[in-house]
Amino acid sequence: MSDLLITNARPMGGDTADILIRDGRIAEIGKGLETAGLPVEDAGGRIAIPGLVDAHTHLDKSLLGYSWYVNEVGPRLIDKIDNERKVKRDYGLDAHVQSMRQALQSVGYGTTLIRSHVDIDTDEGLIALEGVMETRRQLAGIVEIEIVAFPQSGLMRRPGTAELIDAGMAMGADLVGGLDPCGMDRDPKAHLDTIFAIAEKYAKGIDIHLHESGELGAFSMELIFERIRALGMQGKVAVSHAFCLGDPDWNMTQALIDTCAELDVPILTTAPPSREVPSLRRLRSAGVRFGAGVDGFRDTWGPYGNGDMLERSMLLGMKNNLRRDDELLWALDVCTTGGAHAMDRAEHSLTIGGRGDVVIVEGETVGEAIVTHQPRKLVVTAGNVVARDGKSLKERP
Amino acid sequence: MSDLLITNARPMGGDTADILIRDGRIAEIGKGLETAGLPVEDAGGRIAIPGLVDAHTHLDKSLLGYSWYVNEVGPRLIDKIDNERKVKRDYGLDAHVQSMRQALQSVGYGTTLIRSHVDIDTDEGLIALEGVMETRRQLAGIVEIEIVAFPQSGLMRRPGTAELIDAGMAMGADLVGGLDPCGMDRDPKAHLDTIFAIAEKYAKGIDIHLHESGELGAFSMELIFERIRALGMQGKVAVSHAFCLGDPDWNMTQALIDTCAELDVPILTTAPPSREVPSLRRLRSAGVRFGAGVDGFRDTWGPYGNGDMLERSMLLGMKNNLRRDDELLWALDVCTTGGAHAMDRAEHSLTIGGRGDVVIVEGETVGEAIVTHQPRKLVVTAGNVVARDGKSLKERP
Repeated sequence: MSDLLITNARPMGGDTADILIRDGRIAEIGKGLETAGLPVEDAGGRIAIPGLVDAHTHLDKSLLGYSWYVNEVGPRLIDKIDNERKVKRDYGLDAHVQSMRQALQSVGYGTTLIRSHVDIDTDEGLIALEGVMETRRQLAGIVEIEIVAFPQSGLMRRPGTAELIDAGMAMGADLVGGLDPCGMDRDPKAHLDTIFAIAEKYAKGIDIHLHESGELGAFSMELIFERIRALGMQGKVAVSHAFCLGDPDWNMTQALIDTCAELDVPILTTAPPSREVPSLRRLRSAGVRFGAGVDGFRDTWGPYGNGDMLERSMLLGMKNNLRRDDELLWALDVCTTGGAHAMDRAEHSLTIGGRGDVVIVEGETVGEAIVTHQPRKLVVTAGNVVARDGKSLKERP
Repeated sequence: MSDLLITNARPMGGDTADILIRDGRIAEIGKGLETAGLPVEDAGGRIAIPGLVDAHTHLDKSLLGYSWYVNEVGPRLIDKIDNERKVKRDYGLDAHVQSMRQALQSVGYGTTLIRSHVDIDTDEGLIALEGVMETRRQLAGIVEIEIVAFPQSGLMRRPGTAELIDAGMAMGADLVGGLDPCGMDRDPKAHLDTIFAIAEKYAKGIDIHLHESGELGAFSMELIFERIRALGMQGKVAVSHAFCLGDPDWNMTQALIDTCAELDVPILTTAPPSREVPSLRRLRSAGVRFGAGVDGFRDTWGPYGNGDMLERSMLLGMKNNLRRDDELLWALDVCTTGGAHAMDRAEHSLTIGGRGDVVIVEGETVGEAIVTHQPRKLVVTAGNVVARDGKSLKERP
């Protein structure tokens, strides 16, 4: 929580102004602001945007720092899940080290807020959670990390997992995770009853991975809606991926989207080019909170990605066929202010009283900044400079 | 057509070897090759891949070198087409200068072969064609440019256009273009009869833009197939985009794909994340020739893209959900050897007798080179060094 004056910036690509941060909050935006005694950073006429928000990733999974992982994994979901547990054992993967590497790489790209799912299973127990929690402690003030206790290998199919998720929440995880209650666990009622019960016990929210598409995904969404209503958990349950909302059946998806708005269910996307995904335009016009994330990357699941949420805003724009400059701003909003809002942070924007998280980017316009996503000039978290020229100041292990 | 010895390269990520180019062709690949008197380039242990192939772009449209174009264009196809003609007039856009800028940017990214559609319409006549032909002359030996005479603003709906396309072919265009015979021209029979007649007259091939999806696109494909059969034009007619081949109706699309294989109809994609596209796996397994391109970029149509076909191979991989390293090689093939094959160039590969087009890329494996698409170390066209460290040696105007 520091004081900083950023001079000669163009907030959101507008006119040049200074941005004054006091006690980690934006205190003033204007021309020729008072500088006495404050540290000053000159943005050189570049554009200022809010801190980028990665609302869906897996900090414990990346193989950053290792040799390129040659992927020879089979095509089924369970092939990928089983392979990952094996690779983790073979590599002796340290979730703390890996999450430090990924989080600091993301900081270099301008991310100041991350929601990470962390694997909890009966092979490894709570080791990954401990590792990512240690990373969260070490990176406090640099990047805020929110942790979801995530049953990646299934809940009902692997007895003992629910107890571990419960223990993870007691240890300090922020949200309860879930995964494809039909497709993965083959027992949607038990899966959802279990995670909702744990969330209720700890008075915490839920963020559930839902890859199920079409009518199956719609069925799982309805089961989720029923429990939100029954338990009064409006605004507390987010759905990640939600591919079923991208189904071509407009009537089915509109009913689901309207219910997400009614029950305040945030949707978090990674905008994969290969899948039908929730439409940015439709969620926006229905008033559904909407965030985005890089998902896992450079891991045993797949080779793509690098942690850059500015590049992700481009992919989100491409996926949603956004071509106009005003539409590109929507994509950036999902990856900044809107994503933070989906994570219940209301004041993540370049306005008075907003969090002092500022990223100085290259480009004539915000559109160009998104499309070219050149190395970030400066990244500021709560008034502290945390990265310059694409690299975090804190070194990666 | 020059001689060059590239030492210490890893062809396609394999073992280190030297690559000897004589008279613009690969003469030998092996260890400790004879160097007497030849110019030598040390690849420093980096990976060598064939020259990248951009099989679908629009060299005359880009606004490279101008300020960022703030896109406020309406949502319909005709809005974009009409807007583009207006902007061209307002800017006084010079197709020669713009095509030089784009082509040399692509050379910096390692592209050595380009197929460009060039607008021909009753406003501007053959001016754009003249400009791109001049670029082709000036860049001979640096990048090969193939030109499609393209009726961007419609053929039947703008009388006089067919005569201009005919004149463009007489002037030296390589292929006859076409565009959405139903959706754009509202007269599929006349549109297709016209372009096939011009192609027959000049004994040239066709490359037709087909954005039409679902049954409408399938209908246009069938009309194209009928004319190929009737005129014996097997192997001479390519379809760009062919979104209808990505339709979820498997039976309909498989029949179309099988006919593409039977009549040797190459398919050229730009792998847009927002659309259903032809499946790489299905075209590959049916034996359909398949290339890819960057499409137009930084133009009045949309903001995305930069000319990088290595990045495009990543987008193609993401679109087709290719995750394994062997699958990533398929994506690169479409953007190199396979794309050249779709353009009737059989010998565009790192093999003895292949064209001496070599790109030296960064990465531990080909997969990493694709995913990270870092600046190209060296680009060689027919034995001549044409770019270093991401920049073409010939300066852009």
